[in-house]
Amino acid sequence: MSSSHSTANLQLETQSQSFGGTIAFYRHWSDCCQCQMKFSLYLPPQAQHQPVPVLYFLSGLTCTAENFTTKAGAQQFAAALGLAIVAPDTSPRGEQVPDDAGWDFGQGAGFYVDATEPPWQQHYRMYSYVTQELPHLVQTHFPLRGDRQGICGHSMGGHGALVCALRNPQQYRSVSAFAPIAAPMQSPWGQQAFRRYLGEDPTPWQAYDASELVQRSPFPGEILIDQGSEDSFLTDHLKPDLFVAACQRSRQALNFRMQPGYDHSYYFIATFIGDHLRHHAQVLTQS
Amino acid sequence: MSSSHSTANLQLETQSQSFGGTIAFYRHWSDCCQCQMKFSLYLPPQAQHQPVPVLYFLSGLTCTAENFTTKAGAQQFAAALGLAIVAPDTSPRGEQVPDDAGWDFGQGAGFYVDATEPPWQQHYRMYSYVTQELPHLVQTHFPLRGDRQGICGHSMGGHGALVCALRNPQQYRSVSAFAPIAAPMQSPWGQQAFRRYLGEDPTPWQAYDASELVQRSPFPGEILIDQGSEDSFLTDHLKPDLFVAACQRSRQALNFRMQPGYDHSYYFIATFIGDHLRHHAQVLTQS
Repeated sequence: MSSSHSTANLQLETQSQSFGGTIAFYRHWSDCCQCQMKFSLYLPPQAQHQPVPVLYFLSGLTCTAENFTTKAGAQQFAAALGLAIVAPDTSPRGEQVPDDAGWDFGQGAGFYVDATEPPWQQHYRMYSYVTQELPHLVQTHFPLRGDRQGICGHSMGGHGALVCALRNPQQYRSVSAFAPIAAPMQSPWGQQAFRRYLGEDPTPWQAYDASELVQRSPFPGEILIDQGSEDSFLTDHLKPDLFVAACQRSRQALNFRMQPGYDHSYYFIATFIGDHLRHHAQVLTQS
Repeated sequence: MSSSHSTANLQLETQSQSFGGTIAFYRHWSDCCQCQMKFSLYLPPQAQHQPVPVLYFLSGLTCTAENFTTKAGAQQFAAALGLAIVAPDTSPRGEQVPDDAGWDFGQGAGFYVDATEPPWQQHYRMYSYVTQELPHLVQTHFPLRGDRQGICGHSMGGHGALVCALRNPQQYRSVSAFAPIAAPMQSPWGQQAFRRYLGEDPTPWQAYDASELVQRSPFPGEILIDQGSEDSFLTDHLKPDLFVAACQRSRQALNFRMQPGYDHSYYFIATFIGDHLRHHAQVLTQS
């Protein structure tokens, strides 16, 4: 295991050509999460000649790096627009990593926070992993522009994308989300995660609640959100109305689209992923 | 079980909106295969107003109805072109259905033949299922044009698509394939399947070998085939060169595209599925 701690420890697992670019899965030791982590990377054809802007996609509960990569149909748009896409896993994993019997907490459900409570605080540091360790790693090894990063996500990953962007507007120049958990402090999923990862005191929860964050400090660019009207989690868990209200209070530029008939699935994501990639490219590929 | 034999036995399992249309998975009793069978159906938005042409997609070894449906990204093109897509499973399934320990024979590997050998002949009748029972079923229940059918497939399913079209040119007006097992009598996969499903005598094998069929009776329309140059099964199992030679002998109209750098995966399919759907729509949506 010792050799796997070196920063050169980036192992290619699989690689395929896709729309003239390359889709690959990598594994590496994460100092943040103290375990092996996997991610996928799509490099568009343009990356053969020059560094390209990069979009991070954060996935939802139960997902790995694979779901978005195989089901969203994003590569065609990334190829046309010249964007790289990095899709990390949703939590630390492994036998030595604490887990929970539920599907909405523990492995597959890292909620993009840095946990402070035992037994989670040693491995569950997805916020630092996503905003720092992973960008540093991929920018070191691949032709990606560190000054052109965007972030997007779905459900729990939509929450993660909004939080990462709102807390790091100098790092992420564009942000969008599909059906995000938009006010996690008001959501049973979010409350459980925050209580167990961060402790009973809700004060530190606010740093991971997009509605709290946007109200205090809006993002310097338009936020795009798509939400399916037939999403079964809409009312109890996602609560985009609270985020819209918070944006209104802080005059946040927002394009919130309630999409009639759509549910929470990747069929919904695939239908609108082209719009999201164009939203990011408009900002990230500007000179 | 008796009630499930009724022709009205078409059970919706899941349904999602996708690119303005509907993607759904159904289960039904199959008289052909003597078991429950599953398929997916994409209905484009146009089907809300009028019957639409329908494309059948046959999948490869180990696949179910899900792989193509979730990974190929076909729905966006089907929606734009007004095509329905039906994706059946690749074999009969269930505890009562004979199986084999190998991944390339038995359940998940029906090879689109009507087996004649025990113990396979009772359930493994995928040729009749795909060409007769399934089209009849879906045309009865959904707004699909029986006079506008096309067929496509991947690998084992590419073999199936070519065989179905070449043997039923009055039924299928268009055909295409991704990395088909193009000369199964010369392929270890095909030889094993034909020997065990059809018996040691190779005479009946010819009715399921696209290269044999096209040489005797070409298809009345151009056949589109995409093949990845880095496909690890190319030389041993797929052998498109034999199919191309057979087409040359019978003056079959053919567009065979060797795509440099692509492998056998769904990333390859996704890259070119738009071209294939346009190929079919050009024929199927003609007045």
